[in-house]
Amino acid sequence: MQTNNIGVIGLAVMGSNLALNMADHGYQVAIYNRTYAVGEAVIADNPHDNLHLYKTLEDFVASLETPRKMVLMVKAGMAVDKVIEGLLPLLDEGDIIMDGGNSNFHDTIRRTQEIEAQGFRYLGVGISGGEEGARFGPAIMPGGSADAYQYVQAILEDISAKYKGEPCATYMGTDGAGHYVKMVHNGIEYADMQLIAEAYSVLKHIGGFNNDELATIFDTWNNGELESFLIEITAQIFKEIDPKTGKHLVDVITDTAAQKGTGKWTAEEALTTGTDASLLASAVFARFMSSQKDARIHAASILNFDAPRVTIEDKDAFIESVRQALYASKIIAYAQGFDLLKNASVEYNWDLDFGAIARTFREGCIIRAAFLNRISDAYITDANLANLMIDASFKENLMDYQQSLRDVIAAAIQQGISMPAFTSAISYFDAYRTGRGNANLIQAQRDLFGAHTFERLDEPGHFHHEWNQKNA
Amino acid sequence: MQTNNIGVIGLAVMGSNLALNMADHGYQVAIYNRTYAVGEAVIADNPHDNLHLYKTLEDFVASLETPRKMVLMVKAGMAVDKVIEGLLPLLDEGDIIMDGGNSNFHDTIRRTQEIEAQGFRYLGVGISGGEEGARFGPAIMPGGSADAYQYVQAILEDISAKYKGEPCATYMGTDGAGHYVKMVHNGIEYADMQLIAEAYSVLKHIGGFNNDELATIFDTWNNGELESFLIEITAQIFKEIDPKTGKHLVDVITDTAAQKGTGKWTAEEALTTGTDASLLASAVFARFMSSQKDARIHAASILNFDAPRVTIEDKDAFIESVRQALYASKIIAYAQGFDLLKNASVEYNWDLDFGAIARTFREGCIIRAAFLNRISDAYITDANLANLMIDASFKENLMDYQQSLRDVIAAAIQQGISMPAFTSAISYFDAYRTGRGNANLIQAQRDLFGAHTFERLDEPGHFHHEWNQKNA
Repeated sequence: MQTNNIGVIGLAVMGSNLALNMADHGYQVAIYNRTYAVGEAVIADNPHDNLHLYKTLEDFVASLETPRKMVLMVKAGMAVDKVIEGLLPLLDEGDIIMDGGNSNFHDTIRRTQEIEAQGFRYLGVGISGGEEGARFGPAIMPGGSADAYQYVQAILEDISAKYKGEPCATYMGTDGAGHYVKMVHNGIEYADMQLIAEAYSVLKHIGGFNNDELATIFDTWNNGELESFLIEITAQIFKEIDPKTGKHLVDVITDTAAQKGTGKWTAEEALTTGTDASLLASAVFARFMSSQKDARIHAASILNFDAPRVTIEDKDAFIESVRQALYASKIIAYAQGFDLLKNASVEYNWDLDFGAIARTFREGCIIRAAFLNRISDAYITDANLANLMIDASFKENLMDYQQSLRDVIAAAIQQGISMPAFTSAISYFDAYRTGRGNANLIQAQRDLFGAHTFERLDEPGHFHHEWNQKNA
Repeated sequence: MQTNNIGVIGLAVMGSNLALNMADHGYQVAIYNRTYAVGEAVIADNPHDNLHLYKTLEDFVASLETPRKMVLMVKAGMAVDKVIEGLLPLLDEGDIIMDGGNSNFHDTIRRTQEIEAQGFRYLGVGISGGEEGARFGPAIMPGGSADAYQYVQAILEDISAKYKGEPCATYMGTDGAGHYVKMVHNGIEYADMQLIAEAYSVLKHIGGFNNDELATIFDTWNNGELESFLIEITAQIFKEIDPKTGKHLVDVITDTAAQKGTGKWTAEEALTTGTDASLLASAVFARFMSSQKDARIHAASILNFDAPRVTIEDKDAFIESVRQALYASKIIAYAQGFDLLKNASVEYNWDLDFGAIARTFREGCIIRAAFLNRISDAYITDANLANLMIDASFKENLMDYQQSLRDVIAAAIQQGISMPAFTSAISYFDAYRTGRGNANLIQAQRDLFGAHTFERLDEPGHFHHEWNQKNA
């Protein structure tokens, strides 16, 4: 009877691709899907000696070597609980369930407690890289007990993306740590994409560049410090022609961004942990705004702005200033993302390794870029770095590029171009480097109308003032 | 034996002030506090014929006329559930419990269901105006069944603040509607305060005005369209001297804003309902940033910006442009707040009356201002107004003031002054009035790396493109 090394439950594109990835690496893979026909189609389309489809969960489980290792690749939410419910009666103590879907880390924490209390092992595994990544090498972010991880480390490292030979698969921490890191990855992904979109707006509407020129610009940028999967595909997108109309495809696509929810979770967690992640949140809000297309079209006929005509004399200088503004904003976005991870690590007792997280992101995942090496270096230099912006190396960039960031934003605002992410970037940067801000006024107001007390610069403690209230 | 009209449980400042307010209006008020001494102190400090302190919950309940009406003024959270737990066995069918604390609306929805299922009546009542408001006239936002409200309408209207004789107490809708409106009030309050703080920064650091001049500026503004409680107290704050040092008090207060959580809830609800409330959220994030004072002081020594020297020739023109920028931003902040209420009304089946909500805010509450009349007018003109920014009257202001908003922001950015709320305002305005945004690029990226599909401008449906992927 066939003995398999690992199993995959859930054979939609992500699950089947992951299983094929494992099979390619020489593992004997059991696969199962509630609707059998889906599994049959996978086998038919991808005949593979190492892939073994089972009709029942019982047979699937029975085929696995012990301790049994299985990856759930099912829709996040109740479906995961249902599958687990059906699995547990079939398992033996110590068997390992891995949830490879985009589960909310709170659910992962809960499931870890429930399942491990019953003597089984559980890992919440973040997987990034889309279908291509799952098939040929995703970034993998497992979280759970180190005890559970030891049994699956080899296979996860094998199938993961590699950065110069190093696996982009790293144990993140206990219970929900892996899914949390995946969540933050997605929040950063939204920010990266929003920043690129705003750079697009500025290049198009102020620079006056057409799609072919935009493709060249992004291709050039991809050969420099902005090198990344997202910049690379942006260049490609501007070249793509719509077969139906012969126009550039980007111009026929509707400007209404949808989202699957994980970017939203990052913003929620920023609020929960008291983290200023305004730029990450702005990217989520911008998607909400984009989805109100009819309202925007209607408002465009009512709320007018006659932007002054602007001619860019030195096109190359202009492109370079936008590049600098984008790079500076990117640094700031990642500073927020890693600040969130820092606060979460304390809040949820995970002891996260920020350098290791950055290294896991270097290949396989959507935000992959050489840039992540610089973040890794920053944390190697100082594991307790308060904020990426004050790392000596990133500081140099920010010092060099901040004028471009200011200039590009000011120009965009005077041209009526919406820049929620770029403006969040400069606001965050300027607030963080301002030792004496304006919240003293807010504290004074709060004490006046609510007796909420304030602190003083000259002595410790909390104070309430008897405000001269005429009739507050 | 004494028969009382209404009772108050929980005699901290808010509860005791509310009870005294009711007593002043001629109601016989039963009061109770778990720690009896607290109640004794209230009576000792505020002897009042209409106030009746009880030692036990049983005696408190027994003293009330039926159907019994009692207001809980206890700490939001578990304390409310505990008090309810102790009360229910003492009550008769139809008795009315009102939660007057800052409860989360989710809890109010839950409690409404649980309590009304047992035959009692429940109202979640938002109360704003601080201690002063509770004592002399708060804005009151009750939510629950209309059946329950009829019994308490008279007393709530009696004790509420009045705007030209009209009570600022309005039935909001079923179950959590009242607490939700209170929550949004607090989110708007944070935004109003953040905008004022940013105006302060610009006036101080670019205008070079001292505290006495700032007081004059805000006093002048309070005589115009910015007239409001918050602007009034801001002027007052700049006049206040610190008795200990003789300096202006605002200059010795630490710039670290604290928060009690309700502003955060508003931002969370924006995310939950898919509402772009970026400005409201920016005010919350700004408070988080302000609380990192040590980090900011440290960063200030590392991240430098040499702002160009700027001299304001025409001081009056400068002050006026800041005033216009602030007013335009205020409109935009309220547009976001009411957009959230619109989406929540649908999400939670409340059928909110936006004009009535605005009228409830005209007196008593922290955001009170004549400005709320304009919002009321906007909804009287069009009850289905898509967004306050496109109301004909507000549109005029935005058209007139947008240049000042752009100029002030651009100047602040070039001076290194952080303006998270002002920049969120202009970003939101420009996005909303842009019929063709940049999210087409985002949708193209999502389809390329994740096959998430996009929509087309020229035909309905969802499409996936076979992107020429070299090795995406």
